[in-house]
Amino acid sequence: MTDDLKQSLKSCGALLYGEFTLASGRKSSYYIDIKKASTNPRVLSEIADHMATRMEERGLVVDRVAGVVLGSIPLAVALSLRTGIPFVMVRKEKKEHGTGRLIEGELCAGERVLVVEDVVTSAGSSMEAIGTLRAAGALVATVLTVIDRQEGGGDRLNGIGVRLEALLTTEEVLRG
Amino acid sequence: MTDDLKQSLKSCGALLYGEFTLASGRKSSYYIDIKKASTNPRVLSEIADHMATRMEERGLVVDRVAGVVLGSIPLAVALSLRTGIPFVMVRKEKKEHGTGRLIEGELCAGERVLVVEDVVTSAGSSMEAIGTLRAAGALVATVLTVIDRQEGGGDRLNGIGVRLEALLTTEEVLRG
Repeated sequence: MTDDLKQSLKSCGALLYGEFTLASGRKSSYYIDIKKASTNPRVLSEIADHMATRMEERGLVVDRVAGVVLGSIPLAVALSLRTGIPFVMVRKEKKEHGTGRLIEGELCAGERVLVVEDVVTSAGSSMEAIGTLRAAGALVATVLTVIDRQEGGGDRLNGIGVRLEALLTTEEVLRG
Repeated sequence: MTDDLKQSLKSCGALLYGEFTLASGRKSSYYIDIKKASTNPRVLSEIADHMATRMEERGLVVDRVAGVVLGSIPLAVALSLRTGIPFVMVRKEKKEHGTGRLIEGELCAGERVLVVEDVVTSAGSSMEAIGTLRAAGALVATVLTVIDRQEGGGDRLNGIGVRLEALLTTEEVLRG
């Protein structure tokens, strides 16, 4: 399964091997342009299948799927369509226009929410989204990401009682 | 078809009848909370089916589907998954962080793009997105929206050479 997904990410140009310098200044021997995958319906659909399978394997039962604006919204929508579980969209900061809501879509206090992510590095975006969701009364126990760069995000999430599940880790990406 | 969609929008709480005052100050005898529909996978899937059918009926052949951040992204994703046509996400203004791209996803000059919208009123959001897409070399001839409030949006779009297609118009919403 891991190999199938790697192959698909490579084929659509989302996963490149080489020597790269990330925005943080760190070096990486791979580069992931996840939007090349998430805007390609064939690959997006495959990611949603893998995510649904992982949920089944882990016995993850939730009331809502949450995507963080903007990168993980396509993943949340695809997983929602695949599983029939409704989704919410979590904004990163107060939007300037409109109602100023941080959460778009219905969410009731006490509901179990699975946060989906495209790439987790230090998990800053997930931590903020979980804060927003918990402030609204949601129960968040798991973040499911396509890629875990294994740069401390999992530990930070553990620190607030959240488990990180990844379809692919850096270790798996780099494994021959 | 129109009646099926109206019924679904009513059932999920997205379409309410009564006396409402819109943000513009205008009175309306219906209110549409389209996010109640677009975050519900059953209704979202139905909307995507209707959109795909409309594309077939009109002989609309395009290379990309475009959604405008944030409201119409779920519609663009669902239509992309339904039809196999890749999508792009168009931001409303320069984002403060990251690459500053207004268009997320691949788009090549000369590609035919269908813009999808949730609700068109004066079409301001669509006009801006079309400007962004055309500046990138895209050919935009059609906007496909779930609801056309029939408040001048269609005429404004016609003025820039774009046809507005709606799954439901205000007239159809109000028809008994």
